[in-house]
Amino acid sequence: MPNIPVLQHILSANDEIAAENRALFRRYGILALNLMASPGAGKTSVILATAARLPAAIRPGVIEGDLASRIDADAIDARGIPVVQINTGGGCHLDAPMIRSALPDLPLAEITLLLIENVGNLVCPANFALGAGLNVVIGSVSEGHDKPYKYPGMFAAADVVLLNKADLIDLFDFDLAFFERGLRMVNEQAPVFVLSCKSGRGLGAWLEWVEQQWQRARADSE
Amino acid sequence: MPNIPVLQHILSANDEIAAENRALFRRYGILALNLMASPGAGKTSVILATAARLPAAIRPGVIEGDLASRIDADAIDARGIPVVQINTGGGCHLDAPMIRSALPDLPLAEITLLLIENVGNLVCPANFALGAGLNVVIGSVSEGHDKPYKYPGMFAAADVVLLNKADLIDLFDFDLAFFERGLRMVNEQAPVFVLSCKSGRGLGAWLEWVEQQWQRARADSE
Repeated sequence: MPNIPVLQHILSANDEIAAENRALFRRYGILALNLMASPGAGKTSVILATAARLPAAIRPGVIEGDLASRIDADAIDARGIPVVQINTGGGCHLDAPMIRSALPDLPLAEITLLLIENVGNLVCPANFALGAGLNVVIGSVSEGHDKPYKYPGMFAAADVVLLNKADLIDLFDFDLAFFERGLRMVNEQAPVFVLSCKSGRGLGAWLEWVEQQWQRARADSE
Repeated sequence: MPNIPVLQHILSANDEIAAENRALFRRYGILALNLMASPGAGKTSVILATAARLPAAIRPGVIEGDLASRIDADAIDARGIPVVQINTGGGCHLDAPMIRSALPDLPLAEITLLLIENVGNLVCPANFALGAGLNVVIGSVSEGHDKPYKYPGMFAAADVVLLNKADLIDLFDFDLAFFERGLRMVNEQAPVFVLSCKSGRGLGAWLEWVEQQWQRARADSE
Protein backbone atom coordinates (compact mmCIF):
# COMPACT_ATOMS: atom_id res chain seq x y z
CA MET A 1 0.00 0.00 0.00
CA PRO A 2 1.23 3.50 -0.72
CA ASN A 3 2.25 5.56 2.28
CA ILE A 4 0.64 9.02 2.10
CA PRO A 5 1.28 10.73 5.45
CA VAL A 6 0.47 14.23 4.17
CA LEU A 7 -1.55 15.72 7.03
CA GLN A 8 0.59 14.10 9.66
CA HIS A 9 3.67 15.51 7.98
CA ILE A 10 2.27 19.03 7.94
CA LEU A 11 1.27 18.89 11.58
CA SER A 12 4.52 17.39 12.80
CA ALA A 13 6.54 19.89 10.76
CA ASN A 14 4.64 22.67 12.52
CA ASP A 15 5.16 21.00 15.90
CA GLU A 16 8.88 20.59 15.25
CA ILE A 17 9.31 24.27 14.46
CA ALA A 18 7.12 25.17 17.45
CA ALA A 19 9.53 23.15 19.64
CA GLU A 20 12.45 25.09 18.15
CA ASN A 21 10.69 28.39 18.87
CA ARG A 22 9.98 27.21 22.42
CA ALA A 23 13.64 26.31 22.97
CA LEU A 24 14.72 29.70 21.64
CA PHE A 25 12.34 31.55 23.97
CA ARG A 26 13.69 29.53 26.89
CA ARG A 27 17.30 30.30 25.91
CA TYR A 28 16.53 34.02 25.84
CA GLY A 29 14.43 33.88 29.02
CA ILE A 30 11.34 35.13 27.19
CA LEU A 31 7.81 34.33 28.33
CA ALA A 32 5.78 34.02 25.09
CA LEU A 33 1.97 34.28 25.23
CA ASN A 34 -0.29 33.25 22.35
CA LEU A 35 -3.37 35.53 22.46
CA MET A 36 -6.40 34.03 20.71
CA ALA A 37 -9.92 35.45 20.38
CA SER A 38 -12.76 36.32 18.03
CA PRO A 39 -12.37 39.37 15.78
CA GLY A 40 -12.90 42.48 17.90
CA ALA A 41 -12.78 40.82 21.34
CA GLY A 42 -9.97 43.16 22.34
CA LYS A 43 -6.66 41.36 21.78
CA THR A 44 -4.81 44.56 20.87
CA SER A 45 -6.47 46.41 23.75
CA VAL A 46 -5.29 43.70 26.16
CA ILE A 47 -1.74 44.02 24.78
CA LEU A 48 -1.75 47.81 25.13
CA ALA A 49 -3.33 47.78 28.62
CA THR A 50 -0.91 45.07 29.78
CA ALA A 51 2.21 46.68 28.34
CA ALA A 52 1.32 50.03 29.94
CA ARG A 53 1.17 48.46 33.43
CA LEU A 54 4.18 46.10 33.46
CA PRO A 55 6.95 46.54 36.02
CA ALA A 56 10.17 47.84 34.43
CA ALA A 57 11.91 44.44 34.43
CA ILE A 58 9.29 42.97 32.09
CA ARG A 59 10.09 44.37 28.67
CA PRO A 60 7.42 43.55 26.08
CA GLY A 61 7.64 42.82 22.38
CA VAL A 62 4.73 42.03 20.09
CA ILE A 63 3.97 39.93 17.01
CA GLU A 64 0.73 40.99 15.32
CA GLY A 65 -1.14 38.49 13.13
CA ASP A 66 -3.77 39.64 10.65
CA LEU A 67 -4.93 38.56 7.21
CA ALA A 68 -4.19 42.08 5.99
CA SER A 69 -3.45 45.64 7.19
CA ARG A 70 -1.00 46.99 9.76
CA ILE A 71 -3.53 48.85 11.87
CA ASP A 72 -2.67 46.95 15.06
CA ALA A 73 1.09 47.09 14.57
CA ASP A 74 0.89 50.85 14.10
CA ALA A 75 -0.99 51.19 17.39
CA ILE A 76 1.68 49.13 19.20
CA ASP A 77 4.54 50.98 17.52
CA ALA A 78 3.03 54.32 18.56
CA ARG A 79 3.61 53.28 22.18
CA GLY A 80 7.29 52.58 21.49
CA ILE A 81 6.96 48.79 21.80
CA PRO A 82 8.99 46.60 19.39
CA VAL A 83 6.51 44.97 17.01
CA VAL A 84 6.41 42.85 13.86
CA GLN A 85 3.27 42.56 11.73
CA ILE A 86 2.57 39.23 10.03
CA ASN A 87 0.02 39.38 7.22
CA THR A 88 -1.23 35.87 6.48
CA GLY A 89 -2.70 36.97 3.15
CA GLY A 90 -5.94 35.12 3.77
CA GLY A 91 -4.72 32.44 6.16
CA CYS A 92 -7.00 31.86 9.15
CA HIS A 93 -4.33 31.34 11.84
CA LEU A 94 -0.66 31.88 12.67
CA ASP A 95 1.68 28.89 12.58
CA ALA A 96 5.11 28.12 13.98
CA PRO A 97 7.07 28.88 10.76
CA MET A 98 5.47 32.35 10.61
CA ILE A 99 6.64 33.04 14.17
CA ARG A 100 10.13 31.77 13.37
CA SER A 101 10.40 34.05 10.37
CA ALA A 102 9.25 37.07 12.41
CA LEU A 103 11.81 36.61 15.21
CA PRO A 104 14.87 38.07 13.41
CA ASP A 105 12.99 41.39 13.22
CA LEU A 106 12.58 41.59 17.01
CA PRO A 107 15.32 42.64 19.50
CA LEU A 108 15.23 39.29 21.33
CA ALA A 109 18.03 40.17 23.75
CA GLU A 110 16.03 43.14 25.03
CA ILE A 111 12.57 41.55 25.23
CA THR A 112 11.47 39.43 28.20
CA LEU A 113 7.76 39.09 27.37
CA LEU A 114 6.54 38.29 23.84
CA LEU A 115 2.85 38.91 23.21
CA ILE A 116 1.70 37.14 20.04
CA GLU A 117 -1.66 38.33 18.73
CA ASN A 118 -3.10 35.52 16.63
CA VAL A 119 -5.59 36.01 13.78
CA GLY A 120 -9.07 36.84 15.08
CA ASN A 121 -10.72 33.43 14.93
CA LEU A 122 -12.23 31.26 17.66
CA VAL A 123 -11.60 27.99 15.81
CA CYS A 124 -8.46 27.39 13.73
CA PRO A 125 -5.67 29.04 15.78
CA ALA A 126 -6.20 26.52 18.61
CA ASN A 127 -4.99 23.73 16.31
CA PHE A 128 -1.53 25.16 15.53
CA ALA A 129 1.20 25.33 18.17
CA LEU A 130 3.44 28.38 17.88
CA GLY A 131 5.99 27.52 20.56
CA ALA A 132 4.47 29.97 23.02
CA GLY A 133 4.65 29.09 26.69
CA LEU A 134 0.98 29.70 27.40
CA ASN A 135 -2.31 30.16 25.53
CA VAL A 136 -4.39 33.19 26.50
CA VAL A 137 -8.00 33.00 25.25
CA ILE A 138 -9.90 36.28 25.36
CA GLY A 139 -13.68 36.33 25.36
CA SER A 140 -15.70 39.52 25.47
CA VAL A 141 -19.02 40.34 27.10
CA SER A 142 -20.46 41.71 23.84
CA GLU A 143 -20.03 38.30 22.15
CA GLY A 144 -22.42 36.66 24.60
CA HIS A 145 -22.08 34.10 27.37
CA ASP A 146 -22.51 30.98 25.23
CA LYS A 147 -19.13 30.97 23.49
CA PRO A 148 -17.48 28.12 25.50
CA TYR A 149 -20.39 25.85 24.53
CA LYS A 150 -20.12 26.71 20.83
CA TYR A 151 -16.31 26.84 20.52
CA PRO A 152 -15.16 24.17 22.98
CA GLY A 153 -11.86 23.44 21.23
CA MET A 154 -10.58 26.98 21.74
CA PHE A 155 -11.60 27.15 25.39
CA ALA A 156 -10.14 23.68 26.03
CA ALA A 157 -6.78 24.95 24.71
CA ALA A 158 -6.67 27.92 27.12
CA ASP A 159 -4.12 28.17 29.93
CA VAL A 160 -5.90 31.31 31.08
CA VAL A 161 -9.17 32.96 30.04
CA LEU A 162 -9.79 36.70 30.00
CA LEU A 163 -13.32 38.06 29.77
CA ASN A 164 -12.94 41.56 28.34
CA LYS A 165 -15.45 44.45 28.09
CA ALA A 166 -16.68 43.66 31.61
CA ASP A 167 -17.93 47.26 31.91
CA LEU A 168 -20.81 46.14 29.63
CA ILE A 169 -21.88 43.10 31.67
CA ASP A 170 -25.27 44.57 32.68
CA LEU A 171 -25.97 46.14 29.28
CA PHE A 172 -25.63 42.73 27.59
CA ASP A 173 -27.41 40.62 30.26
CA PHE A 174 -24.25 38.55 30.37
CA ASP A 175 -24.60 35.50 32.66
CA LEU A 176 -21.11 34.98 34.07
CA ALA A 177 -22.05 31.76 35.89
CA PHE A 178 -23.34 30.27 32.61
CA PHE A 179 -20.14 31.29 30.82
CA GLU A 180 -17.99 29.68 33.52
CA ARG A 181 -20.07 26.48 33.57
CA GLY A 182 -19.46 26.12 29.82
CA LEU A 183 -15.77 26.74 30.27
CA ARG A 184 -15.50 24.13 33.05
CA MET A 185 -17.12 21.51 30.79
CA VAL A 186 -13.98 21.57 28.64
CA ASN A 187 -11.33 23.11 30.89
CA GLU A 188 -11.09 22.43 34.63
CA GLN A 189 -7.99 24.43 35.36
CA ALA A 190 -7.62 27.72 33.51
CA PRO A 191 -8.07 30.75 35.76
CA VAL A 192 -10.57 33.37 34.57
CA PHE A 193 -9.94 37.11 34.82
CA VAL A 194 -12.95 39.36 34.30
CA LEU A 195 -11.68 42.74 33.19
CA SER A 196 -12.22 45.84 31.12
CA CYS A 197 -9.40 47.37 29.13
CA LYS A 198 -11.54 50.49 28.81
CA SER A 199 -12.27 51.10 32.51
CA GLY A 200 -9.19 49.31 33.86
CA ARG A 201 -11.34 47.08 36.10
CA GLY A 202 -9.74 43.72 36.87
CA LEU A 203 -6.43 44.44 35.15
CA GLY A 204 -4.47 44.23 38.43
CA ALA A 205 -5.20 40.53 39.06
CA TRP A 206 -4.36 39.70 35.42
CA LEU A 207 -1.07 41.63 35.64
CA GLU A 208 -0.19 39.75 38.83
CA TRP A 209 -0.76 36.44 37.02
CA VAL A 210 1.43 37.56 34.11
CA GLU A 211 4.21 38.54 36.51
CA GLN A 212 4.04 35.14 38.24
CA GLN A 213 4.25 33.31 34.91
CA TRP A 214 7.08 35.58 33.83
CA GLN A 215 9.09 34.85 37.02
CA ARG A 216 8.56 31.12 36.43
CA ALA A 217 9.77 31.43 32.81
CA ARG A 218 12.84 33.40 33.94
CA ALA A 219 13.65 30.78 36.59
CA ASP A 220 13.25 27.98 33.99
CA SER A 221 15.71 29.64 31.64
CA GLU A 222 18.50 29.93 34.14
CA MET B 1 4.86 12.96 -13.69
CA PRO B 2 2.27 11.84 -11.18
CA ASN B 3 -1.01 13.73 -11.24
CA ILE B 4 -1.98 14.79 -7.71
CA PRO B 5 -4.94 17.17 -8.01
CA VAL B 6 -6.02 16.81 -4.38
CA LEU B 7 -6.95 20.37 -3.42
CA GLN B 8 -8.55 21.10 -6.77
CA HIS B 9 -10.60 17.94 -6.44
CA ILE B 10 -11.87 18.86 -2.97
CA LEU B 11 -12.84 22.36 -4.06
CA SER B 12 -14.54 21.29 -7.25
CA ALA B 13 -16.42 18.52 -5.42
CA ASN B 14 -17.76 21.16 -3.03
CA ASP B 15 -18.65 23.45 -5.93
CA GLU B 16 -20.45 20.63 -7.75
CA ILE B 17 -22.60 19.86 -4.74
CA ALA B 18 -23.17 23.59 -4.18
CA ALA B 19 -24.48 23.77 -7.76
CA GLU B 20 -26.85 20.86 -7.03
CA ASN B 21 -28.08 22.60 -3.88
CA ARG B 22 -28.60 25.81 -5.87
CA ALA B 23 -30.60 23.95 -8.52
CA LEU B 24 -32.75 22.34 -5.85
CA PHE B 25 -33.48 25.71 -4.19
CA ARG B 26 -34.47 27.11 -7.57
CA ARG B 27 -36.76 24.14 -8.27
CA TYR B 28 -38.52 24.68 -4.95
CA GLY B 29 -38.61 28.47 -5.34
CA ILE B 30 -36.55 28.97 -2.18
CA LEU B 31 -34.35 32.02 -1.59
CA ALA B 32 -31.35 30.71 0.39
CA LEU B 33 -29.18 33.17 2.33
CA ASN B 34 -25.74 32.26 3.74
CA LEU B 35 -25.25 34.32 6.94
CA MET B 36 -21.59 34.76 7.88
CA ALA B 37 -20.08 36.71 10.79
CA SER B 38 -17.71 36.63 13.75
CA PRO B 39 -18.78 34.72 16.86
CA GLY B 40 -21.37 36.78 18.72
CA ALA B 41 -22.02 39.36 15.99
CA GLY B 42 -25.72 38.49 16.10
CA LYS B 43 -26.43 35.96 13.35
CA THR B 44 -29.14 34.21 15.37
CA SER B 45 -30.59 37.56 16.47
CA VAL B 46 -30.81 38.64 12.82
CA ILE B 47 -32.58 35.38 11.95
CA LEU B 48 -35.09 35.77 14.79
CA ALA B 49 -35.70 39.48 14.13
CA THR B 50 -36.12 38.84 10.39
CA ALA B 51 -38.41 35.83 10.77
CA ALA B 52 -40.66 37.74 13.17
CA ARG B 53 -41.25 40.53 10.63
CA LEU B 54 -41.71 38.64 7.34
CA PRO B 55 -44.94 38.95 5.36
CA ALA B 56 -47.03 35.77 5.52
CA ALA B 57 -46.04 34.60 2.02
CA ILE B 58 -42.38 34.33 3.01
CA ARG B 59 -42.14 31.18 5.09
CA PRO B 60 -38.72 30.75 6.73
CA GLY B 61 -36.66 27.70 7.53
CA VAL B 62 -33.26 27.65 9.19
CA ILE B 63 -30.04 25.64 9.12
CA GLU B 64 -27.85 26.32 12.15
CA GLY B 65 -24.10 25.66 11.92
CA ASP B 66 -21.96 25.36 15.05
CA LEU B 67 -18.94 23.35 16.11
CA ALA B 68 -21.00 22.03 19.02
CA SER B 69 -24.23 22.62 21.00
CA ARG B 70 -27.83 23.18 19.89
CA ILE B 71 -28.37 26.46 21.72
CA ASP B 72 -29.23 28.38 18.55
CA ALA B 73 -31.46 25.67 17.07
CA ASP B 74 -33.43 25.52 20.32
CA ALA B 75 -34.00 29.30 20.17
CA ILE B 76 -35.27 29.03 16.57
CA ASP B 77 -37.42 26.00 17.34
CA ALA B 78 -39.02 27.83 20.28
CA ARG B 79 -40.47 30.29 17.73
CA GLY B 80 -42.03 27.47 15.72
CA ILE B 81 -39.64 27.82 12.78
CA PRO B 82 -38.43 24.62 11.05
CA VAL B 83 -34.75 24.21 11.90
CA VAL B 84 -31.89 21.73 11.52
CA GLN B 85 -28.73 21.97 13.61
CA ILE B 86 -25.44 20.97 11.98
CA ASN B 87 -22.58 20.33 14.42
CA THR B 88 -19.29 20.41 12.54
CA GLY B 89 -17.47 18.72 15.42
CA GLY B 90 -14.57 21.17 15.25
CA GLY B 91 -14.83 22.21 11.59
CA CYS B 92 -14.44 25.95 11.05
CA HIS B 93 -17.07 26.40 8.31
CA LEU B 94 -20.12 24.82 6.67
CA ASP B 95 -19.72 23.23 3.25
CA ALA B 96 -22.08 22.19 0.46
CA PRO B 97 -22.27 18.47 1.42
CA MET B 98 -23.31 19.43 4.97
CA ILE B 99 -26.14 21.54 3.56
CA ARG B 100 -27.21 18.72 1.23
CA SER B 101 -27.37 16.25 4.09
CA ALA B 102 -29.45 18.66 6.20
CA LEU B 103 -32.11 19.28 3.52
CA PRO B 104 -34.09 16.03 3.94
CA ASP B 105 -34.88 17.12 7.50
CA LEU B 106 -36.51 20.38 6.36
CA PRO B 107 -40.07 20.69 4.92
CA LEU B 108 -38.81 22.09 1.60
CA ALA B 109 -42.26 22.28 0.01
CA GLU B 110 -43.43 24.61 2.79
CA ILE B 111 -40.36 26.86 3.08
CA THR B 112 -39.74 29.81 0.75
CA LEU B 113 -36.79 31.43 2.56
CA LEU B 114 -33.87 29.38 3.90
CA LEU B 115 -31.62 31.18 6.38
CA ILE B 116 -28.30 29.34 6.78
CA GLU B 117 -26.31 30.41 9.83
CA ASN B 118 -22.68 29.55 9.11
CA VAL B 119 -20.06 28.85 11.81
CA GLY B 120 -18.99 32.05 13.59
CA ASN B 121 -15.76 32.85 11.75
CA LEU B 122 -14.77 35.86 9.66
CA VAL B 123 -12.29 33.92 7.52
CA CYS B 124 -12.91 30.33 6.38
CA PRO B 125 -16.66 30.27 5.56
CA ALA B 126 -16.11 32.75 2.70
CA ASN B 127 -14.09 30.11 0.83
CA PHE B 128 -16.79 27.40 0.65
CA ALA B 129 -19.87 27.82 -1.55
CA LEU B 130 -23.02 26.29 -0.08
CA GLY B 131 -25.36 26.82 -3.02
CA ALA B 132 -27.06 29.77 -1.36
CA GLY B 133 -28.37 32.53 -3.60
CA LEU B 134 -26.75 35.37 -1.66
CA ASN B 135 -24.07 35.92 0.99
CA VAL B 136 -25.07 38.06 3.97
CA VAL B 137 -22.09 39.29 6.01
CA ILE B 138 -22.96 40.65 9.46
CA GLY B 139 -20.59 42.97 11.27
CA SER B 140 -21.34 44.40 14.70
CA VAL B 141 -20.50 47.74 16.27
CA SER B 142 -18.90 46.10 19.32
CA GLU B 143 -16.29 44.41 17.09
CA GLY B 144 -14.92 47.77 15.96
CA HIS B 145 -14.87 49.66 12.68
CA ASP B 146 -11.66 48.15 11.28
CA LYS B 147 -12.97 44.70 10.37
CA PRO B 148 -13.20 45.18 6.56
CA TYR B 149 -9.50 46.14 6.51
CA LYS B 150 -8.47 43.08 8.54
CA TYR B 151 -10.81 40.49 6.97
CA PRO B 152 -11.04 41.65 3.35
CA GLY B 153 -11.86 38.21 1.91
CA MET B 154 -15.09 37.93 3.88
CA PHE B 155 -16.27 41.45 3.06
CA ALA B 156 -15.36 40.94 -0.63
CA ALA B 157 -17.65 37.89 -0.69
CA ALA B 158 -20.68 39.80 0.65
CA ASP B 159 -23.77 40.45 -1.48
CA VAL B 160 -25.12 42.54 1.39
CA VAL B 161 -23.58 43.79 4.64
CA LEU B 162 -25.47 44.25 7.89
CA LEU B 163 -23.97 46.27 10.72
CA ASN B 164 -25.68 45.02 13.88
CA LYS B 165 -25.76 46.45 17.43
CA ALA B 166 -26.15 49.96 16.00
CA ASP B 167 -27.72 51.06 19.29
CA LEU B 168 -24.14 51.02 20.68
CA ILE B 169 -22.55 53.18 17.97
CA ASP B 170 -21.78 56.12 20.31
CA LEU B 171 -20.71 53.93 23.24
CA PHE B 172 -18.04 52.28 21.06
CA ASP B 173 -16.88 55.42 19.19
CA PHE B 174 -17.65 53.49 16.01
CA ASP B 175 -16.63 55.43 12.88
CA LEU B 176 -19.16 54.37 10.26
CA ALA B 177 -17.44 56.29 7.42
CA PHE B 178 -14.16 54.46 8.17
CA PHE B 179 -15.98 51.10 8.17
CA GLU B 180 -17.61 51.87 4.83
CA ARG B 181 -14.35 53.08 3.26
CA GLY B 182 -12.74 49.76 4.21
CA LEU B 183 -15.68 47.85 2.77
CA ARG B 184 -15.55 49.79 -0.53
CA MET B 185 -11.85 48.95 -0.94
CA VAL B 186 -12.86 45.31 -1.52
CA ASN B 187 -16.55 45.50 -2.43
CA GLU B 188 -18.05 48.28 -4.55
CA GLN B 189 -21.59 47.02 -4.74
CA ALA B 190 -22.96 45.43 -1.60
CA PRO B 191 -25.61 47.55 0.10
CA VAL B 192 -25.08 48.24 3.82
CA PHE B 193 -27.88 48.15 6.37
CA VAL B 194 -27.12 49.66 9.76
CA LEU B 195 -29.48 48.10 12.28
CA SER B 196 -30.06 46.89 15.80
CA CYS B 197 -31.85 43.62 16.45
CA LYS B 198 -32.28 44.77 20.05
CA SER B 199 -33.94 48.16 19.41
CA GLY B 200 -35.42 47.29 16.01
CA ARG B 201 -33.73 50.29 14.37
CA GLY B 202 -33.05 49.83 10.67
CA LEU B 203 -34.77 46.46 10.35
CA GLY B 204 -37.43 47.83 7.97
CA ALA B 205 -34.98 48.64 5.16
CA TRP B 206 -33.29 45.24 5.54
CA LEU B 207 -36.67 43.46 5.43
CA GLU B 208 -37.57 45.37 2.28
CA TRP B 209 -34.34 44.21 0.65
CA VAL B 210 -35.01 40.59 1.66
CA GLU B 211 -38.51 40.81 0.18
CA GLN B 212 -37.13 42.16 -3.13
CA GLN B 213 -34.57 39.35 -3.35
CA TRP B 214 -37.25 36.83 -2.47
CA GLN B 215 -39.56 38.07 -5.23
CA ARG B 216 -36.66 37.81 -7.70
CA ALA B 217 -35.92 34.25 -6.59
CA ARG B 218 -39.60 33.30 -6.92
CA ALA B 219 -39.76 34.80 -10.43
CA ASP B 220 -36.59 32.92 -11.41
CA SER B 221 -38.05 29.60 -10.32
CA GLU B 222 -41.20 29.86 -12.41
